[in-house]
Amino acid sequence: MTRINTLCVIGTGLIGGSLCLALKQQHYCGQIIGAGRSEQTLQSAQQLNIIDQYSLSIAAGVAQADMVVVATPPGAMQSVFEQIKPALKDTAIVTDAGSVKQQIQRIAEQIFAGAADRFVAGHPIAGTEDSGPQAAFSELYQQRRVILTPAKNTRQTAIDQVTAMWQAVGANVETMDAAHHDKVLAATSHLPHALAYALVDCLQSMDDIDEVFRFAAGGFRDISRIASSDPVMWRDIFLQNREQILEMLTRYRGELDIIYNALQSRDGESLQALFARAKKSRDQFV
Amino acid sequence: MTRINTLCVIGTGLIGGSLCLALKQQHYCGQIIGAGRSEQTLQSAQQLNIIDQYSLSIAAGVAQADMVVVATPPGAMQSVFEQIKPALKDTAIVTDAGSVKQQIQRIAEQIFAGAADRFVAGHPIAGTEDSGPQAAFSELYQQRRVILTPAKNTRQTAIDQVTAMWQAVGANVETMDAAHHDKVLAATSHLPHALAYALVDCLQSMDDIDEVFRFAAGGFRDISRIASSDPVMWRDIFLQNREQILEMLTRYRGELDIIYNALQSRDGESLQALFARAKKSRDQFV
Repeated sequence: MTRINTLCVIGTGLIGGSLCLALKQQHYCGQIIGAGRSEQTLQSAQQLNIIDQYSLSIAAGVAQADMVVVATPPGAMQSVFEQIKPALKDTAIVTDAGSVKQQIQRIAEQIFAGAADRFVAGHPIAGTEDSGPQAAFSELYQQRRVILTPAKNTRQTAIDQVTAMWQAVGANVETMDAAHHDKVLAATSHLPHALAYALVDCLQSMDDIDEVFRFAAGGFRDISRIASSDPVMWRDIFLQNREQILEMLTRYRGELDIIYNALQSRDGESLQALFARAKKSRDQFV
Repeated sequence: MTRINTLCVIGTGLIGGSLCLALKQQHYCGQIIGAGRSEQTLQSAQQLNIIDQYSLSIAAGVAQADMVVVATPPGAMQSVFEQIKPALKDTAIVTDAGSVKQQIQRIAEQIFAGAADRFVAGHPIAGTEDSGPQAAFSELYQQRRVILTPAKNTRQTAIDQVTAMWQAVGANVETMDAAHHDKVLAATSHLPHALAYALVDCLQSMDDIDEVFRFAAGGFRDISRIASSDPVMWRDIFLQNREQILEMLTRYRGELDIIYNALQSRDGESLQALFARAKKSRDQFV
């Protein structure tokens, strides 16, 4: 059943592309238009049946759209919003899929001004370390959480339509305060990415790096997986959630210091207690 | 074909138990005797067909053994070696499966003295975050590396027999200097475990921990997996490879500082460069 006549997606990579593929399976949209700067990416997306047609002009792409999904790296969103704004239909709803919500909401309020009540900030808690249209797959959002962080003035009908869209692709939608979202995600997603990037960069500067990687096992493969994530997107996320990530890095350094000091003073009891506490939490999480 | 008449395994958990299961599939041993302190563990191992019989006396367990495999946490090995020594047959070969090799070799040389040339230090680079006999499975060593770190005086026939045993269960065996082993493993395995334990412990001390874990996604699950590893074994590994791990922790803190400082000064270019460098290394590794 068609619920959105024309969907425009800006950014047809893993996140935007997977949404389109899943919506197509549900026949949820009359047509899906991709818009963006890279014709190569848009052509790939069309060939992969992610989008029906594309436009290299964002303004032209969104002109007919009833729903606009912005799934670019967070750093590109300001410019995208500026291009969207003058072309939007009066009834169009805009949402995004960025990993940081406070700054996006501030930008949206500034740029969309009177139309900001039709912008619904969103974040699907899903992904892989791969990127681009080739990485998209229709099952990505099945049983995954999508967090919406509407502002006080966001229209309920807009929230409802964005919620319905994500539910149609199998996601569980929750709403949350944007500041709270950014704090929680700094802990569970942004800090882990910092740690993984730092680990691989730390090892790759060692003399015998080939040897080091040769003897790396499953533990290393798993802990480093997210260091294969898109560097531009993660630069943007770090800059946009700077305060919260700095705070988490400080907390984490304190934790590493505890391990360092216990080990330096051969305090096996404290090491074991810390490891056991962590194991208990992690086992409960799983 | 029976290649070992009597194998005695001390420590019948994931590592020792998986070796026994795989050797049984190959009919490689006439009989397998488990020995250790915990009757409950040994009974489980017998019920799971990991061992044929067991002894609560390590001395009695090893008395008939042609090959003795010590697969206890590293911290227990000194006491185990002391109990083994007086009971060993003149022709028996002893090997271990610990994650740190320099200290074990020192201990073995001290305790086994004249028989130390029949001790072959070994380390299978394999495992999961689970532990105990229930976690053992016969495929654990298929296509995995086993590193042997023989001393200068280790008998070649002993090295050959330990090599053949690991090859029989599907492993690729290499030899390496013990100091080099400890340095490489500090980087690829011990440091990652420190980071995972620190991450989970860091998060679990936050106010809204339930919320934090509720919104954790696949990235967190993977990066924290090894924090579910056995705390006693990892305490022992840390204490035994103390210098190398302290050095890696220092390197890693330096790397985190680079990220912290770049983020604090809003230096997106440096962040992106570091992330891209790490992604490239990690993609090459996979």
